[in-house]
Amino acid sequence: MTASPTHWILTLVCEDRPGIVHAISGAIVAAGGNITESQQFSSDGTGTFFMRLQVESDAPRETFEAALLPVTQQYTMTWQLDVVGRPLRTLVLVSTAAHCLNDLLFRQRAGQLPIELPLVLSNHGGLASLAEFYSVPFEGHPVTNAAEKTAFEARILRAVEEHDIELVVLARYMQILSPELCARLGGRIINIHHSFLPGFKGANPYKQAHQRGVKLIGATAHFVTSDLDEGPIIEQNVVRVDHSRSTRELVAIGQDEESRTLTQAVKWFAENRVLLDGDRTIIFK
Amino acid sequence: MTASPTHWILTLVCEDRPGIVHAISGAIVAAGGNITESQQFSSDGTGTFFMRLQVESDAPRETFEAALLPVTQQYTMTWQLDVVGRPLRTLVLVSTAAHCLNDLLFRQRAGQLPIELPLVLSNHGGLASLAEFYSVPFEGHPVTNAAEKTAFEARILRAVEEHDIELVVLARYMQILSPELCARLGGRIINIHHSFLPGFKGANPYKQAHQRGVKLIGATAHFVTSDLDEGPIIEQNVVRVDHSRSTRELVAIGQDEESRTLTQAVKWFAENRVLLDGDRTIIFK
Amino acid sequence: MTASPTHWILTLVCEDRPGIVHAISGAIVAAGGNITESQQFSSDGTGTFFMRLQVESDAPRETFEAALLPVTQQYTMTWQLDVVGRPLRTLVLVSTAAHCLNDLLFRQRAGQLPIELPLVLSNHGGLASLAEFYSVPFEGHPVTNAAEKTAFEARILRAVEEHDIELVVLARYMQILSPELCARLGGRIINIHHSFLPGFKGANPYKQAHQRGVKLIGATAHFVTSDLDEGPIIEQNVVRVDHSRSTRELVAIGQDEESRTLTQAVKWFAENRVLLDGDRTIIFK
Amino acid sequence: MTASPTHWILTLVCEDRPGIVHAISGAIVAAGGNITESQQFSSDGTGTFFMRLQVESDAPRETFEAALLPVTQQYTMTWQLDVVGRPLRTLVLVSTAAHCLNDLLFRQRAGQLPIELPLVLSNHGGLASLAEFYSVPFEGHPVTNAAEKTAFEARILRAVEEHDIELVVLARYMQILSPELCARLGGRIINIHHSFLPGFKGANPYKQAHQRGVKLIGATAHFVTSDLDEGPIIEQNVVRVDHSRSTRELVAIGQDEESRTLTQAVKWFAENRVLLDGDRTIIFK
Repeated sequence: MTASPTHWILTLVCEDRPGIVHAISGAIVAAGGNITESQQFSSDGTGTFFMRLQVESDAPRETFEAALLPVTQQYTMTWQLDVVGRPLRTLVLVSTAAHCLNDLLFRQRAGQLPIELPLVLSNHGGLASLAEFYSVPFEGHPVTNAAEKTAFEARILRAVEEHDIELVVLARYMQILSPELCARLGGRIINIHHSFLPGFKGANPYKQAHQRGVKLIGATAHFVTSDLDEGPIIEQNVVRVDHSRSTRELVAIGQDEESRTLTQAVKWFAENRVLLDGDRTIIFK
Repeated sequence: MTASPTHWILTLVCEDRPGIVHAISGAIVAAGGNITESQQFSSDGTGTFFMRLQVESDAPRETFEAALLPVTQQYTMTWQLDVVGRPLRTLVLVSTAAHCLNDLLFRQRAGQLPIELPLVLSNHGGLASLAEFYSVPFEGHPVTNAAEKTAFEARILRAVEEHDIELVVLARYMQILSPELCARLGGRIINIHHSFLPGFKGANPYKQAHQRGVKLIGATAHFVTSDLDEGPIIEQNVVRVDHSRSTRELVAIGQDEESRTLTQAVKWFAENRVLLDGDRTIIFK
Repeated sequence: MTASPTHWILTLVCEDRPGIVHAISGAIVAAGGNITESQQFSSDGTGTFFMRLQVESDAPRETFEAALLPVTQQYTMTWQLDVVGRPLRTLVLVSTAAHCLNDLLFRQRAGQLPIELPLVLSNHGGLASLAEFYSVPFEGHPVTNAAEKTAFEARILRAVEEHDIELVVLARYMQILSPELCARLGGRIINIHHSFLPGFKGANPYKQAHQRGVKLIGATAHFVTSDLDEGPIIEQNVVRVDHSRSTRELVAIGQDEESRTLTQAVKWFAENRVLLDGDRTIIFK
Repeated sequence: MTASPTHWILTLVCEDRPGIVHAISGAIVAAGGNITESQQFSSDGTGTFFMRLQVESDAPRETFEAALLPVTQQYTMTWQLDVVGRPLRTLVLVSTAAHCLNDLLFRQRAGQLPIELPLVLSNHGGLASLAEFYSVPFEGHPVTNAAEKTAFEARILRAVEEHDIELVVLARYMQILSPELCARLGGRIINIHHSFLPGFKGANPYKQAHQRGVKLIGATAHFVTSDLDEGPIIEQNVVRVDHSRSTRELVAIGQDEESRTLTQAVKWFAENRVLLDGDRTIIFK
């Protein structure tokens, strides 16, 4: 690559030790870069150091990588060098609910969400026209038995390869994914689900929330693990409700929280602001 | 009673049937009253009708009650006639944490909370000086074994009788009350506890919240039932946190939410704005 | 009309006097109605009484109106009898910004906004395809001089008549309307604009907000009067920002607040929840 | 000084140039320090670079300062080296309203606010007992004419010298300070005032807010300049209100926002998180 972009994003994770910042900033100076944004965090729990830098430079990627190499090796860093604003290749999975997909598509087109959407996959056909309006290819495949599920998951993995997908978004995709698929896509698959205070187990949580008269309902965007709805949390929002809301209204209110929470999580991920620290996330806003 | 106040609060609960509003408003007109505030709610779930009225009138209580009697009998109403701003006789129970008690005392003195506080009871002595500063009697009794617990609960009930207590507030009182006491004080005892998305069971929930990297922490004020932390919810609040917060900071942030949530719940209760509809509350703000 | 709907909305405004609630509820009982929701407010400032009722009934409109007539005449009421969920005939005006129109269209189709949209008018052509996707007729007319402006305003008034428009929504319509048009549409035309703490006068307020380092930016939905941006406020929202946000990011964040605030205001208006009390609004949520 | 603390806070401000981070981190490594927290910001508007570091080290202050000296000279930095948790010497000025003072005192004692309060000065005597309860010296001096005002401002400056005051807090101090005093205390004097959307000029803003039916009221904490209520903003909060709130209730609600907003601003200042960038603040939360 000989690209010569203006703004780079550098993220790195390693064991916390003295001198990391000095070593990294030295490499950046050596490559002619100027740090314009910098965030770091030392996790007491895991002893891990996290850093996200934005760097302005005229140097090509090779120069940067060459300058960084000795430091990343010395500190055994996991690192990523990306360009600010590069659209993240994102695969969206949906079922029948349109609110999350609509928000992602609208904001992507509005230039507020640095993603590109080569494909939407669904276990239904209902959202085809919405995807079409935004000129995004859409495939609907019925998933009503084990064979169809296996085929659909194979299609997902094939799509991930074909389009070099960096993020899979479950935008109200209502099928449970196999543990194997979750493991394959670990750290690059995000889900959204409703959240309540207190939490409700079992079927129809909005009905339970109505019966308990909760005053706040919300949504949580999180990484998918094989532990259903229990992966590392990326973002959460709540909104106030009162006793006069019917269960149906609670659902509509909850959907608003779902779309804005999911879109926010995708945006942060696409901007390399989400790093994993064991079971928790570091968000460099 | 021959008091002749300007503003009355009338709350009533009965089976939902046509004509209730007309019947009640007729009784109020007959007693020379003018409705200045009115809120009602028909619960689909339980078929119950709830109403809260504020009424301006020169008539004495007797006139009012006489005018209301036929209507309340006809519709088999549970009802209460109170005077706006009358201080609610409130007993506060505390342990060692000062934040909730401080907020209640400060706002009571500032004239923002229509309660009077004849007594604070505690299983510790640490908050005596805070109560004393606000000239509120304080009793600390150690509760370290079954006998002391029985004695303390007896003291609570005696205080409720002596001071004609209308509301008991657990302002971070850290002892579990016996089911008998909960039942005796049913519908007039309020607790505050921390809340998270998702909820955490077991010891040290703030530590668990830290480990899971939750983005929202909050508090729930609820009626106490023998089901610990599961009574009808009165009010909830949350506040945003991020990965950089230590467990200790999460505790401090959570305490802020606890005091403002508890004070709000007490205020609404003291203003007769909290009615029970099975396991949920109707809040007429 | 011989329609026999289940749920009615009755709103009424009159001088505040004793006995109104009793008189109205008597008329409703006489017409076989059951009050399921009721909100009222007495304005100290203007001495005006406001009420909104939802009533379940099998009676036809004629029966209702006949029963209400003596009461509305006796108290010289301004009143309206509507059916819950009836779509409000709404005309939307836009320029080039899509965010507000997209939100209105998406929520209308999702069944969350009881409006129908017979027409979108614009001084640009850029949003034609968005309207088309939702099958809403769209007309773009250039408005670059006085004659075109006069013609466009005439087109607005003609559209209001042709489609029997009940509400005009300025969804980021960036032309100033003539005082005559504002007067003609008084009380049924809503605008959205950005809001800051403190307010900024003059051009490019987001740039000014950036220079002053404001920590909150927001939006206000209000009725349009000939006093630009000064009509009665319907709804306001704010969101937190920090020093790291560029002017461009502030604009994007502000747009989110604009769309959700405008959609909320339109929803409340369409549900007959917005009443005017001089320079302020009564919102019966 | 020979103190050997564990955690240092280093803040620095200079013209933005490449290599700053590398130079500073090099000096810290040389002094045996480990960076545990780091935030930086480059202001496009003023071309200024801001940085706040937390550093763990066994080295004494002299070692640190000696290591930093060449770097701070090379880049012409304004810088400060402080110890995490050191209580900031704070002078509070009050008049009659207790809410802000109460919150500062309670949180200071609760260990949530790293300040020490050698003195409270007032133009009234009313809050003496509150200060006394927290064992803080209090002086009330009448300020009813020009001579008394001159004397009071002289007393303020003397107190600042006597107690080596680092921050002056106007906790609802209702007298206008002279431009000379504002200039003398520039950058270390914070005020709190109410804020509305839109802003209201002139007397009794809460009454104006009531008349306009605003839906959000709030508070702004800002540095004091000779431009009244126009200094750089540190923090802002708002809360939702509706038409049913009386002017008196708006005042009470506004006071809550005032105390929490002021306390937050003081806390950030005391933790060296507030830096000035022309007319705006950089807040390193």
